[in-house]
Amino acid sequence: MSIIRRNEIEAVLPVSLQNVQNAAARICGYVRQTPLLESSLLNEVLGFRLLVKAECLQVTGSFKARGGFNQLLQLDEETKRQGIIAWSSGNHAQGVAYAAQKLGIKATILMPHDAPQLKMENTRRYGAEIVTYNRDTEDRNEVGNRLTAERGLHLIHSYDAERTIAGQGTVGLEIYNQTCEQGISPDALIVNCCGGGLSSGIAVTCGLYEKPPMLYTSEPQFFDDARRSLASGTMMKNDRVSGSICDALLMPNMGIKPLQILLHHGAQGLTASDDDAQAAMHVALEYFKLVLEPGGAVSLAAAFLNRQQFQGKTVVAVASGGNVDPDAYIDMLRRGRVHRAKLLPQLGR
Amino acid sequence: MSIIRRNEIEAVLPVSLQNVQNAAARICGYVRQTPLLESSLLNEVLGFRLLVKAECLQVTGSFKARGGFNQLLQLDEETKRQGIIAWSSGNHAQGVAYAAQKLGIKATILMPHDAPQLKMENTRRYGAEIVTYNRDTEDRNEVGNRLTAERGLHLIHSYDAERTIAGQGTVGLEIYNQTCEQGISPDALIVNCCGGGLSSGIAVTCGLYEKPPMLYTSEPQFFDDARRSLASGTMMKNDRVSGSICDALLMPNMGIKPLQILLHHGAQGLTASDDDAQAAMHVALEYFKLVLEPGGAVSLAAAFLNRQQFQGKTVVAVASGGNVDPDAYIDMLRRGRVHRAKLLPQLGR
Repeated sequence: MSIIRRNEIEAVLPVSLQNVQNAAARICGYVRQTPLLESSLLNEVLGFRLLVKAECLQVTGSFKARGGFNQLLQLDEETKRQGIIAWSSGNHAQGVAYAAQKLGIKATILMPHDAPQLKMENTRRYGAEIVTYNRDTEDRNEVGNRLTAERGLHLIHSYDAERTIAGQGTVGLEIYNQTCEQGISPDALIVNCCGGGLSSGIAVTCGLYEKPPMLYTSEPQFFDDARRSLASGTMMKNDRVSGSICDALLMPNMGIKPLQILLHHGAQGLTASDDDAQAAMHVALEYFKLVLEPGGAVSLAAAFLNRQQFQGKTVVAVASGGNVDPDAYIDMLRRGRVHRAKLLPQLGR
Repeated sequence: MSIIRRNEIEAVLPVSLQNVQNAAARICGYVRQTPLLESSLLNEVLGFRLLVKAECLQVTGSFKARGGFNQLLQLDEETKRQGIIAWSSGNHAQGVAYAAQKLGIKATILMPHDAPQLKMENTRRYGAEIVTYNRDTEDRNEVGNRLTAERGLHLIHSYDAERTIAGQGTVGLEIYNQTCEQGISPDALIVNCCGGGLSSGIAVTCGLYEKPPMLYTSEPQFFDDARRSLASGTMMKNDRVSGSICDALLMPNMGIKPLQILLHHGAQGLTASDDDAQAAMHVALEYFKLVLEPGGAVSLAAAFLNRQQFQGKTVVAVASGGNVDPDAYIDMLRRGRVHRAKLLPQLGR
């Protein structure tokens, strides 16, 4: 289903490289430069060079603290006193709650009632007040708008806001610096996509390369609104917002600003199934010593699934988060172990 | 049992800070600067500030590539042609095999027949020839010396060699730089200890701090020769060399050079049980998104066990490795989950 047409997607891009560079200078004392990891053993089996940007090691366990700090550090005193609100399934919730705690701002977070326990608990431990809604029966925007108005709060949008996109884009700046240090010019970047804040923010930085890499969004199978929107040039919507273990990547549709940026940069969409994501989590454990949540591993899964087209190339996959309930993680590894043998039989075991 | 007395431990130290700094300059193009991670949520529960040096993210999955490269980069051409040998339960094996592969040197590795499958497989995949011995019935030194002589190979000692110690010490330089950047002067460093190459190398760098941190070695319970050697000032030996899941930390005794350095710096020894190590692996998964092998998690476990004495302080724990068979990892997480509730009941779940 198309909900916004191509002619509504404007020519003037909402976020510039300068915005991202300013964000990097603004947030650098609050977030980490995460490592860009590589395994020569895995590369040999894959037939291409895979670099993993480990955003699961970011403060709060995902890239979301970047956008959170870039937003909150620009608020005026009056807005800070009134407090902020964010709507999130868990990673934006934690990133914003943590940033608010560090900066002494009261945070209210609207979360789906079935968000992973770990994400909900940690959001509370970062000092935020949590309000829940039912993902299947209630409209998040409706509940969120009502709550925001009633309480007079300032909304920190998780993806469709210039400052959020610029903050997430700092991941792209780091990738650029880290690849340059190694004399690498990647052929492709694969970035997990839900609202599109991260992938569009990174897209803004691709022009830094003399030969810009191809940018791919990665989404769970059956929740591939970005892939379809990028292919058609119009905003497409998902039929459902639940039914995948990739809880971080389930929404009706991506943001208009991210879509606009991604279309401008000629991005394309990739997908991976839950099984593929679990197999990628297992590979990440063995070859990168990283704990990924399923939504954080879709980019790696997409790289594995499309390995024929990447032969001989250099691919950066952004591992966007690692916030998974430990018990669920163990179960996912068990299933991932079985499916990995199908996805990457060359790896053995 | 004491095997070497205090008066045999000489006054002139085998490794200087300059040696470590030279090693850092030598190997920097071959190894990674690993991140120093922290979780505000965990700190709050612990009552002290815990920084984790994530050497599991180092190339080959442990700190060992540092010493390996520092050794191999200093070999003369004739020695390179003859080839090198290393004796190792798995991490030194991989670190040396990888360095040898990168530098085009033939590597032979002597490993216990019961080394973890992952470590043995990867050593082979890094291009080394593996020879096995029985850890319980054969003497590693005897088998190793015979093999080295028969084949005319150059031995890359895993801990009792100046160049190995200087290479591992680069971990300490990174910790120093990373803590300084954040304006932190740690009160204590906890470093996993088997032969003592890593802990003694780091000890050499402690003098960089205006107020040097206290250095603690961490070992598996019942394999605490370093703790006893440091307490008595004489080289003590373990009764056994098997019977713990911490496969990376099982040897008859530490090296004389490491002991000499550690005694000079007034280091003391801590221990943790296998259960504690597994609990620490579970905590590392949840709070740091890191996959640790049991021997790599003993330092974290020791920090948790001694949390009363660390209240209000800043402690750096070196997570030395993450090379664990995925199936074994899942089992260890299951057991770690249960024991974690006893070790750190405040963490909940």
